[in-house]
Amino acid sequence: MSYARLEEGLTLECGSVLAPLDVAYRTYGQLSAARDNAILVCHALTGDQFLAEQHPVTGKPGWWSRMVGPGLPIDTDRFFVICTNVLGGCMGSTGPRSLQENGEPWGTDFPPITIRDMVRAQALLLNHLGIGRLFAAIGGSMGGMQVLQWVATYPERVFAAMPIATSPFHSAQNIAFNEVSRQAISADPEWHNGRYWDYGAVPARGLGVARMMAHITYLSEEALTRKFGRRVRRDPAIKGDTALEPASLFGEMFEVESYLRHQGSSFVRRFDANSYLTITRAMDYFDLSAEYDGDISAPFLGCKTRFCVVSFSSDWLFPTSQSRLLARALNRAGVNVSFVEIDSDRGHDAFLLDEPDFDRTMRGFINGAAEHAGLGKAG
Amino acid sequence: MSYARLEEGLTLECGSVLAPLDVAYRTYGQLSAARDNAILVCHALTGDQFLAEQHPVTGKPGWWSRMVGPGLPIDTDRFFVICTNVLGGCMGSTGPRSLQENGEPWGTDFPPITIRDMVRAQALLLNHLGIGRLFAAIGGSMGGMQVLQWVATYPERVFAAMPIATSPFHSAQNIAFNEVSRQAISADPEWHNGRYWDYGAVPARGLGVARMMAHITYLSEEALTRKFGRRVRRDPAIKGDTALEPASLFGEMFEVESYLRHQGSSFVRRFDANSYLTITRAMDYFDLSAEYDGDISAPFLGCKTRFCVVSFSSDWLFPTSQSRLLARALNRAGVNVSFVEIDSDRGHDAFLLDEPDFDRTMRGFINGAAEHAGLGKAG
Repeated sequence: MSYARLEEGLTLECGSVLAPLDVAYRTYGQLSAARDNAILVCHALTGDQFLAEQHPVTGKPGWWSRMVGPGLPIDTDRFFVICTNVLGGCMGSTGPRSLQENGEPWGTDFPPITIRDMVRAQALLLNHLGIGRLFAAIGGSMGGMQVLQWVATYPERVFAAMPIATSPFHSAQNIAFNEVSRQAISADPEWHNGRYWDYGAVPARGLGVARMMAHITYLSEEALTRKFGRRVRRDPAIKGDTALEPASLFGEMFEVESYLRHQGSSFVRRFDANSYLTITRAMDYFDLSAEYDGDISAPFLGCKTRFCVVSFSSDWLFPTSQSRLLARALNRAGVNVSFVEIDSDRGHDAFLLDEPDFDRTMRGFINGAAEHAGLGKAG
Repeated sequence: MSYARLEEGLTLECGSVLAPLDVAYRTYGQLSAARDNAILVCHALTGDQFLAEQHPVTGKPGWWSRMVGPGLPIDTDRFFVICTNVLGGCMGSTGPRSLQENGEPWGTDFPPITIRDMVRAQALLLNHLGIGRLFAAIGGSMGGMQVLQWVATYPERVFAAMPIATSPFHSAQNIAFNEVSRQAISADPEWHNGRYWDYGAVPARGLGVARMMAHITYLSEEALTRKFGRRVRRDPAIKGDTALEPASLFGEMFEVESYLRHQGSSFVRRFDANSYLTITRAMDYFDLSAEYDGDISAPFLGCKTRFCVVSFSSDWLFPTSQSRLLARALNRAGVNVSFVEIDSDRGHDAFLLDEPDFDRTMRGFINGAAEHAGLGKAG
């Protein structure tokens, strides 16, 4: 696993210091001689750095394999694409699973982090790689929060930015869902106040419940209805639920239930519960306007970065209204911004799925920005 | 606590027999000499029969005290209002907490029930009370499902029906949320496979998580934002979450989190976990069209009941689209139906809250129906 150990470490917003700091990352394509073709892709809550290659734990394709690769909208024949595991994650970057100086894992003693801390860790990695300026920062959901924070913190270091299916602040509803997730995890006795490793345990049920709930919020009602509707399936696991023969509905379960259970149980094999707690908190803290009296424009005044803000029509977790708010704020700040709402009935997850209009938007924005950056046209 | 013990019992849809059957209920107002002024109000998932009086456990006003009473839209000076605890509930009607013949509580051995079973238990109570025909059946959410099932099963026994914030079938998304609730409860080790009474335990954490999640779905994003936004409060309980002084955001919690925790913990004091499992299953099974090849009109063909279908614009749990589907199906069946979408930004919970337009709709529908029923005008 590629990672950089940054001995100087990082002083977090909360005042704690993480030193040394590990940033795990993967790259795709070649850095140009001018070092001007780097694209940073930022992952979402449960994503990781395995963007465009087989995942070492699940064996599945990278989470954005359909978007990133030779000839694809984020074209690795042309760009040098970097993806880091976020600070606080569990795939190699410093996080709750990392060891403290005393040799113990951090667990819940891991200090609270923010989206800005995540971005500053990425900036340290770019320094380490000798990349001063990104051609583009791109990401969806929590990845989009990082993109926004990148431009707010380092406006000179990002030529183009695409925040996708995201928001300039985490909403009360989303904070509420995250809080229920955290309660589900901490309610699991196998969580052992976050020291589950001491007991050879994993809070699998609690983390599974958290994932199941979150998964509903990633889909639209339409998508759930189309995928599952009210169809039932016979499942041996549910037979014991009733004293009846499975001759009727009562012996069966709905397909959507079976699907969610699978989502919950497969997730816990690859994700750390304390990372989930840490990262959801970071999302909840996110509010770009907090230091500016609620003015979302303020962090972007005078900024030269070219923006393309993307939302999906059926996304109710990060609804179009929040992207529109962002686009208007960028406009008010005099920033070069385009705003695209992709018509899709697949909810928040649409940004990960095959959406041809989205691919065209991505290609168009990257090609246009590359031309303005003097990188020339695609070959 | 008023209840009727019905010795003949009830044969459930699943084939099991519950005998004797207890139906706990409360009444308000006086039954007319002609026995023609009865209104059955059906409660939602976590409601009970304490409709318009102080609740014996919580000490709070009845759940619809603002709607039901002398001079109120459901006027007890004029109508005899009945509210039963649903079959499967935990406030006196036969349910998982009731004792079997062997003296043990049913627990998870309680047979699976349906909305139709709930309605048939209510019909037995009405027989017992000597009420052949209801002037009206009224209810919101799962209460609305009961209203629909009443008309479908006993079309001659309901003169007027108002299904509120409900649907003719439970959607995939709502089944999914219910399934996560059930997983949260069964993941709690204090659940003990549903035999928690043997251990002097209550699966309070799991039931609390279920309630917290459900509560988010009862509100709209707008309502959550207006009520809480991103405001934080200092809470001593969270101090231990971090190693930091509470000088910054990190020592505080969001108000919405504190509110949800309170919702979760107060709920477990009044509700039984096995009842929650049983009743959510009944909601999930609900599909009026299941026996009619998906045709929602079919159960209502030739029905003389007057309908008023009500939805709320910001309700995303039982969205207006589902009420519209219902109203159209009733129309196709030639039923006398009006359909009202109340403009409100308070989500699903709006039907329980002070919404003057809703009150006017209720008054207008009841007065109009009473006139047609020959009950005369309000005094």
